[in-house]
This record gives sequence, structure tokens and C-alpha cells, in this order.
Amino acid sequence: MTEQPRQLTLNAFIYPTGHHEASWRHPGSTPERLYDVTYYQDIGRTAEAAKLDAVFLADGPALRTDVRHNATYSFEPITLLTAIASVTTHLGLIATASTTYYEPYNLARLFSSLDHISGGRAGWNIVTTGTDKAAGNFGLDVHPDHATRYERAREFVDAVVKLWDSWEDDALVIDKERGIYADTRKIHPINFEGKHLKVAGPFGAARSPQGHPVLVQAGSSNDGRDFAGRYAEAIFTAHQRLSDAQAFYADIKKRAAEFGRNPDHVKVLPGISPFIGDTEAEAHALEREFNELTVVEYGLTQLENITQVSLRHLRLDEPVPLDVFGDAGTVTDNTASRKQVVANIVERDRPTLRGLLHRLAGARGHRVFAGTAEQVADTIEEWFTKGGADGFNVMPPQYPQGLEAFTAQVVPILQQRGLFRTEYTGRTLRDHFGLPRPVSQFATVSI
Amino acid sequence: MTEQPRQLTLNAFIYPTGHHEASWRHPGSTPERLYDVTYYQDIGRTAEAAKLDAVFLADGPALRTDVRHNATYSFEPITLLTAIASVTTHLGLIATASTTYYEPYNLARLFSSLDHISGGRAGWNIVTTGTDKAAGNFGLDVHPDHATRYERAREFVDAVVKLWDSWEDDALVIDKERGIYADTRKIHPINFEGKHLKVAGPFGAARSPQGHPVLVQAGSSNDGRDFAGRYAEAIFTAHQRLSDAQAFYADIKKRAAEFGRNPDHVKVLPGISPFIGDTEAEAHALEREFNELTVVEYGLTQLENITQVSLRHLRLDEPVPLDVFGDAGTVTDNTASRKQVVANIVERDRPTLRGLLHRLAGARGHRVFAGTAEQVADTIEEWFTKGGADGFNVMPPQYPQGLEAFTAQVVPILQQRGLFRTEYTGRTLRDHFGLPRPVSQFATVSI
Repeated sequence: MTEQPRQLTLNAFIYPTGHHEASWRHPGSTPERLYDVTYYQDIGRTAEAAKLDAVFLADGPALRTDVRHNATYSFEPITLLTAIASVTTHLGLIATASTTYYEPYNLARLFSSLDHISGGRAGWNIVTTGTDKAAGNFGLDVHPDHATRYERAREFVDAVVKLWDSWEDDALVIDKERGIYADTRKIHPINFEGKHLKVAGPFGAARSPQGHPVLVQAGSSNDGRDFAGRYAEAIFTAHQRLSDAQAFYADIKKRAAEFGRNPDHVKVLPGISPFIGDTEAEAHALEREFNELTVVEYGLTQLENITQVSLRHLRLDEPVPLDVFGDAGTVTDNTASRKQVVANIVERDRPTLRGLLHRLAGARGHRVFAGTAEQVADTIEEWFTKGGADGFNVMPPQYPQGLEAFTAQVVPILQQRGLFRTEYTGRTLRDHFGLPRPVSQFATVSI
Repeated sequence: MTEQPRQLTLNAFIYPTGHHEASWRHPGSTPERLYDVTYYQDIGRTAEAAKLDAVFLADGPALRTDVRHNATYSFEPITLLTAIASVTTHLGLIATASTTYYEPYNLARLFSSLDHISGGRAGWNIVTTGTDKAAGNFGLDVHPDHATRYERAREFVDAVVKLWDSWEDDALVIDKERGIYADTRKIHPINFEGKHLKVAGPFGAARSPQGHPVLVQAGSSNDGRDFAGRYAEAIFTAHQRLSDAQAFYADIKKRAAEFGRNPDHVKVLPGISPFIGDTEAEAHALEREFNELTVVEYGLTQLENITQVSLRHLRLDEPVPLDVFGDAGTVTDNTASRKQVVANIVERDRPTLRGLLHRLAGARGHRVFAGTAEQVADTIEEWFTKGGADGFNVMPPQYPQGLEAFTAQVVPILQQRGLFRTEYTGRTLRDHFGLPRPVSQFATVSI
């Protein structure tokens, strides 16, 4: 196993005081630092010291639900990553941004700028935004439906990549003597015209160090998977069980191949939220400690938002009825995938409502795993070697302690097993992910 | 004079290799560093070491005209300022952004984030975008007209300030014991509805250190001045002569008063591009050295863009005919103010076409001044004490050398005369500008 050349991808998914919804109430947490940029810069330094591939930021252009009972931040993610870029040298920087609620030219600039500023470490997690609360912030009465959002998303990504490609790599001449700064024959209008978007170009800046930022995607619906197969170079996904992860993994690799792409150039990265203890019992006790801090009202609201089902008639300490979420498998709206995760838990494990709330409190439907560092490493290795994952989006239940535990205790085991780098071998996020630098679609051969 | 308590405002207007259009061709310039973030971070450090109020970045969401003959960068300005924020502690950070080509919610987030990250140092230079090249990048066939742009700009600023105000300053409770993170009674929807924009709110983040970023404005048309009088806390403007600057200054202060504002809370800041020499002759020689590096084709294109007048029939070394720019004073389109500056130069000084191109090469119509450090300090003091300016937007012809000369030679003279701080007395840009922290328009009195 130590000769295994294939290497794990490991990202730290930054989340206010941690991914456990009650983490902010824990005595060790510092929610008062959530608007202090050094809090995030320190997390970036910890991730880089452990040679992680990247940090990742979620985002949505609206106030989060129920800020009464949960710590939020809403730094705009690209600026926050720029601040982290300034105190790191190798760490990848992946920001979520919405194709529904941005203009392609503006978003292309923000990511290009991050890629230039960071020396080639930017990644874009492409989302269509799953909350209709955003619509009202952008002059819309109703949130566009799922299919329309994905139709716009495809156009959006096509237009943005064309903008990034519109300066060929050798467009900059910088000939002081002749007074020629750029070879304008190598700077191309893109003249993109779709059903939803029209973008003339050319872009206002030279091509960025990675050619373009790494394209990441996180949707698990059929539209989402199709989109991922076509565009994504990395995919974040949520699975509770290896068998589900394996099926998803195989499906994504197949779709990528169908689009004529190399399946190795699509990294499948499930989330994992590890509670780490010196013994298994200690790890479980730590998880319980967090679960006992949850606010029932908050958890219920979140669950109702995810499933779009009212739950107020249920009793907390009785099993959740099997039919309460209907037949989730046939739901086609934007909440389908997470609703299905919930329905599967209910069907499989028959939890009480309180038990279900605790299950979801850990990481919003992502996999929570409590165990020793060795056990965390084991499950990571198992999923990695058995076709369930190319790596993981690590979602510590508490920041910074959970990330520090993971990097201090789990990462060294993975390194000893030859599964994870002990030094960065490249400088860009593409280098870390083992992805090629894309050639500009406008590239011409010089004569 | 040394007892004068009123203090100058001095910003460094960052521009690729300098404000002189041929600066990139100068042997001392490093256009190859324009995509290297440390180049700008070093400029920020220089500005902060001299206790300048702020750095300032221009912007437009389109490729600049004629990149063949001129060095450009197009870092997105808010990300670039975030990178500068990371290596400075007091320096103000002012970014230009367009109300025509942004969504208010997205732009509000970017500036709020910069204000949080920098600890209260953000400023927004509000522009409506004067180039119709941008329209095609945003799906429009034609650039909206001047009046429509300003109508949208007023709505845009109203909506954005409401978003910034929507969390009262004491909305964050962070009571771990009771499980209450925020007091949602102090987080307000804004329900903004205008002719062009509709924004529901509330905002996704807590109110930022300055209450909101400093509002800056740069338009000199009648609409622009009206807008400035109503909203701007600082105004960048271009004047060649003290008498013009005085008239503008008086007009702006009067308009601010008419809107019920304190005229002292609107800083009027003309641009000045100083060539500094040990002797006056050396300073003029330096200016000539740069002018001789200009590319005629580039200057002509720029002048045609500014004035919307074809000039190809004119001879380079003959005087520009008086009527070539028509009656600029009556022009009402978006090029009016800069066209008028050009027409005034022609009328007053009767330059040859080459001479006019050289005049404009220095700082695109802003005032170029060649002299000793003492003479630069003298003219700054004269405009400041005679009602022409509250300070200056310093536009070094060459970066970083021109800024270094200004901070090393001119700033100490102004400090000796008691006109400029020797230490920062506050931490925020509002502190430096002497502006009050605005109260949230949603603020309620606690019972």
C-alpha cells in the first residue's frame, strides 16, 4: 500500500466556528472572531502547514436562515480567499459563486484576479444557488427553476472560460523599444451569444497562471451530474455510505468519459466531518457533547428548509414516520438530493426526530465519523482505494480545533501510508490536483 | 501657517507603471511586474510609511483601448486592495466600481467584506462607467445614456447603503448560554423598490467597522455634481487652474449644503501629477524625457476617444484649430467634462497637436506639475489654503519612483508646514478623512 502512487486530495472546508451547527456554543469556540480576518488566515496557515490541497468556502447571496440560533459569517468568499492568499504560498483557494446571481464578466474578473494574485491557486465551485431567498436580492419575484438555472449555468461557464481564454498566453509582448505592450492579434473578442447571456469580450486582463481557475461543482441532481461530467475538474458530494459513494463515483467518471474527457481529471471528493478522540469512546463522547448543544428550534427549521416538509406535528423522542418525506426519489426540484439523503437515513436507521436532528447537526447531511485518528485514516483509505473517492472535503465539526486535530493526527498517518504528500510538488492548485493546464481555445500557432 | 489645524488629504492613485501614458517604456519601469501582486503591495507600504490617507484604484469593466501601445493591468480592484490590506494596517483603500454594470447585492458584499477585512479602511469610488465598450460585456447592445445611468446610480447607492445599514450595530448578541447568536429584531429587510432596481435584503453580514465604506465620486457633469453633493464624502476632480478648482470647490460645497449636509464632510480632491526634480530645470527635463517616449498613434486614439472628434486630418506640428472640438460647453454626453478640459487647453494655450498630445500624455487631462519638491509643496498649499482643494489625489507619472519621490521629498515639507499628519491619529479611512461614522438608518433605541 505504501507504494501506491495515486495520492489523496484533501481540502479543508472552512465554515464559521465549525461544521457542527452548535459548534459556536462550545466553550472552546470563538464566534466573536468571525469578522476577524486573522481567524481565517490562521486556518489557512494550518491547512498549508499540513500540505492540504486547498481551502474551500461555501456561499449564497442571501442572509442564512435562522441567524438567531447559528453563527454565520458572510465575508464575500473571493475577497476572503485573497486575504488568505496573502499569508500562504501553495495552498489552493476554492470559492463558491453563483451562476444565477452574477454577471459572467464580473465573476470572471474576480476569479482571474484571485488566480493572478495567488500565483495560480484559484478554484471556482460553480453553483446555481439552491435558495429562493436570493431571488429577492436580485430584483426577481421568483427563483428561476432548476432546469433554467442549469441552462444559464452552462452558458455562464462557457462564456467565462472564453473570457479567460481570450488573451492567448503569449499576448503580452512588452517591447519598450518598439512601443508595443501587447500583440492585439492574440487578444480575441468572444462574441458569446446564448439564450440567457450575451458577452462580447475580449477580457480586460492577461490569461492567468493556471490558464483558468480549477472548475469545481457540487450538485448531485441529474442536471448537476451532467454538468459535472461536462465541466467539473473536482466534485464535492455528500454520501453516508461507501456503496452510495461508489455508485456516484462510477457514474461521474462514466459521464466525464462520455463527454470525451479523461476521467482522472475529475476528482470526486465526498465530505467527511470527523470527531477525533484518543479512543473511540472519547470520539463519541465529543460528538455527544456537541449534539447536546444543539437548539431544537434551529434544527427543525433547517430540516424543514432542506425537505420542504412541515415537521411541527411530530414528537421529538418518537421515531420519524417512514412516509413523512414522501417518495424523495421522485422529487425533481432543487432540494431533491439533500432531501433524499434525509429520507434514506430515516428509512435505514429509523431514528427519533431528535436523533435525526442530531445526525444532521453534524454537517448538514454530510458524513459524520467519530473515531480515533487511525480509524479516520482507515475509512479515508477504504473509500479512496475502493472506488468511492479521490479524496475528501474535510469538514471539521469545530474550527480551528477540529482542523488542528485532523492535520496533527490523521494527516501523518496518511503520509506514513504513502497516500498523501509530505511536501508540495508544485505551486498551483492544478499541480496539487494533478490536472493539466488547459490550452486557450483561441490559441494560434505562431509562424 | 504651522498652526493651521486643517489637514491635507493625500491619496496615491495607483496606475500600472505610472500615470504618464509612456511610463511603461521608461528604462526604470517594470511593466513585466504588472501581474505581480507584490508590486502593488510595495506601493501600499510606501504610501502607508508616508502616512498617506489612502490608495485609489480606477476601474472599468472592459478591455482598455489600445493595449497594443500601453501597459494595462486589470486586476479586479477590490481583490487587489484586499491583497494590499493584508500588508498594511492604516492605509485607506478606495476602489472604483460601476453602478451600471454591477448588481447592488454583490457589490455591497464585496465592499462590506473589504471593510471588515481591512478593519474599516474601505472606500467606494462610485462611477456610472463612461465607456460604451462595457455594454457588450453585459449583454447590452447600447450603453445606457448619461441621465439613465445616473438615475440607476442614485437607486443603486440608496439600495447598497440600506443593505449595509440593515444589521444594526448591536445586532450581534453571541450569547452561547442562551443559544442566541443574533437579535433578529435588529436585522431588517430593506424592501427597496426603484424604477431600475429591486432589492429585498436583509444583508448577509453584520454592519462593517466604518458603518459603511466611504462614498467617493468622480463625475464633473451637472448630474455628477448633483450626485456628489447628495452622496459623496470625497470627490476626485480634474482642474488645470486654481480658478477653475475654486469654482468647482465652491459649487460642490454649496450643493452639499443644499442637501442638508455639512460641507466639511465632502472632501474635494483634484488630481496632481508631479514631476519632481532637484531643480526646476531638472523637473522639466524629466517631463520631456517621458513625453518623448509617447507613441503618437496611441495619444491620437486616446484624444479621439475623449473628445469623440476625428483628428487624423490635422498636422502634428501645427496649432490645433480653435473650433475643432466645437462648443464643448454645451455637450451633454458622458465625455463632456473631459472634452471641455481639452477644449479649454486649446483655447487658452494654442498648442500644436503634438504639444496637446504631450499635455494629455501626463495624466489624461489631470494637472501635470513639474518643479522642485518645494514648488510642488507650494502649489499644494496654495490650492489648499485658497479654497481650491481639501487635498489631492496624487498621480505619480511613474511607479514606484514618482510616489517615492513625492513621499520622500514633498510630504516632509508639508509636514514641516503643519499641513499634513506625521502619524495616523485613527485607524479607519473615516478617521483619516475626518468623517463621522454614519448611524444606521434602521437604528432603533434599545429599551
